[in-house]
Amino acid sequence: MSIQYILELIGTVVFAMSGALAVSEKDKDQDWFGAGFTGFVTAIGGGSLRDIMLGSYPLVWIQDTTLLYVIIAAIICSGLFYKWLLNLRRTFLLFDTLGISIFTIVGMEKALSLGASPEIAAIMGMFSAVMGGVIRDILTNEVPVLFRQEIYASACLLGASFYLGLEYLEVERNTNFILSVFLIIGIRLLAVRYNLSLPKFNRFRE
Amino acid sequence: MSIQYILELIGTVVFAMSGALAVSEKDKDQDWFGAGFTGFVTAIGGGSLRDIMLGSYPLVWIQDTTLLYVIIAAIICSGLFYKWLLNLRRTFLLFDTLGISIFTIVGMEKALSLGASPEIAAIMGMFSAVMGGVIRDILTNEVPVLFRQEIYASACLLGASFYLGLEYLEVERNTNFILSVFLIIGIRLLAVRYNLSLPKFNRFRE
Amino acid sequence: MSIQYILELIGTVVFAMSGALAVSEKDKDQDWFGAGFTGFVTAIGGGSLRDIMLGSYPLVWIQDTTLLYVIIAAIICSGLFYKWLLNLRRTFLLFDTLGISIFTIVGMEKALSLGASPEIAAIMGMFSAVMGGVIRDILTNEVPVLFRQEIYASACLLGASFYLGLEYLEVERNTNFILSVFLIIGIRLLAVRYNLSLPKFNRFRE
Repeated sequence: MSIQYILELIGTVVFAMSGALAVSEKDKDQDWFGAGFTGFVTAIGGGSLRDIMLGSYPLVWIQDTTLLYVIIAAIICSGLFYKWLLNLRRTFLLFDTLGISIFTIVGMEKALSLGASPEIAAIMGMFSAVMGGVIRDILTNEVPVLFRQEIYASACLLGASFYLGLEYLEVERNTNFILSVFLIIGIRLLAVRYNLSLPKFNRFRE
Repeated sequence: MSIQYILELIGTVVFAMSGALAVSEKDKDQDWFGAGFTGFVTAIGGGSLRDIMLGSYPLVWIQDTTLLYVIIAAIICSGLFYKWLLNLRRTFLLFDTLGISIFTIVGMEKALSLGASPEIAAIMGMFSAVMGGVIRDILTNEVPVLFRQEIYASACLLGASFYLGLEYLEVERNTNFILSVFLIIGIRLLAVRYNLSLPKFNRFRE
Repeated sequence: MSIQYILELIGTVVFAMSGALAVSEKDKDQDWFGAGFTGFVTAIGGGSLRDIMLGSYPLVWIQDTTLLYVIIAAIICSGLFYKWLLNLRRTFLLFDTLGISIFTIVGMEKALSLGASPEIAAIMGMFSAVMGGVIRDILTNEVPVLFRQEIYASACLLGASFYLGLEYLEVERNTNFILSVFLIIGIRLLAVRYNLSLPKFNRFRE
């Protein structure tokens, strides 16, 4: 197993846990199945949407059932260590940030390898990272994560553009991967720490 | 027409009616188009999602326009016999249960025939059965059917696993089909009758 | 550039603007990214869903990045001229109507060219026109545009059927295109002007 595959598994675990915990936080009486389903969809949603849009079959989790078992294990752990995990919000934020960073770059590389143009690949990278969470929020009737105030998906898009820039400058791929992932992590953590947000859309309103 | 095709048509009719009635129950002033659209999406949603995820084209309802006309007929009937159908809730539950049972096993068999692994095929069977209803609930801003208390999608998943077990034991396919469908129906009806639900996700919470 | 391509671009611009303005109308503090994302999804959602359902790859906006830049430009304009655009509601309605009319006929022609049956092609035309708006409404937790009272998607379906009828009568394609687009525009504007709606679904209720 390559380091990258392990990183992807970590991202998948974090997304599965965030989905399972989100639905049960919202509805205290939620059963195992509802929590598990939401965790599952959160973990596979972004990558599946990317692959469906690119017409790349079979979908990753359909080909590699390891992912399925990792997701199931993550959900069972979330249920067993429910209380403990909810107290870990800060650590969790770190893992979620790691998850979206890795998914962005991995997703973008996949799109590039399928022949997508750089602009499209950057969007696909961001989709891989955030659409699982968007689907989770739609299922649980929450305001999608994209519309909340902190910088989130835009950090992914920025990191993806950064990667494309370094690739253009012929920076070696592994170095580029690590730098871009760290850039996304940095932006996201700074945004949370200092409560940074993008300019308002309607600021020219009278 | 095989018996199985007739059973699938019955499932489609029930899903179309449940969609049309759901939206007009929620909004008393809903017009024919809104009700029809929701019925249509409920009927084709699960199977379409399964086929899109498996990359199996053309989608069933795009290839076989009989389904389209059956859905339209079902929606017109729901409108004409609106009051009568709403009084039939108990019969309706029976048909809906029949619908999800058949769709689960048919959907799983299709996934298996396309080369999906057993675990994935079971999930695809469940998706075929329940995702139409989930899309219906998202469109109408309801809490998705998956997150309500009674056993629903989990019965489908259990029935699918049961089928896979019997197939492994080399039970003849038609017998297996009937036994698995009846198992799903049995679990679902018992769950409704005795108000059974799965364990809560957060029961280890202090 | 053909006239038709220019018309499609206009449709795309209008959809992108309507998405961006919708989300920032709903949440006054929405940032640029949230508004842009919604505009983007509104503009590409309908066509992407059509192509995914028909298995037609690559998706239009993935192949033709001009669309991407047109969408980005439209969103920036919406932000800069926010106040002015919101005062233009009447003009906007006109453009939106032009947008759905063109998308319906273009989407239907594409489905026909991919071998879909006439009924399916009409549905695909309507999907192209309205599903972007439906996804926008799901993301922003609004009642989907389909379920509001005025004639909207049904005008698209009617225009698509009209086109199919004229095609059957061997009317020349360009004439047919223009007549069908104008029919949709006419129905929609009359419906808004005189507040027309379809019959209620449950009107036989006691």
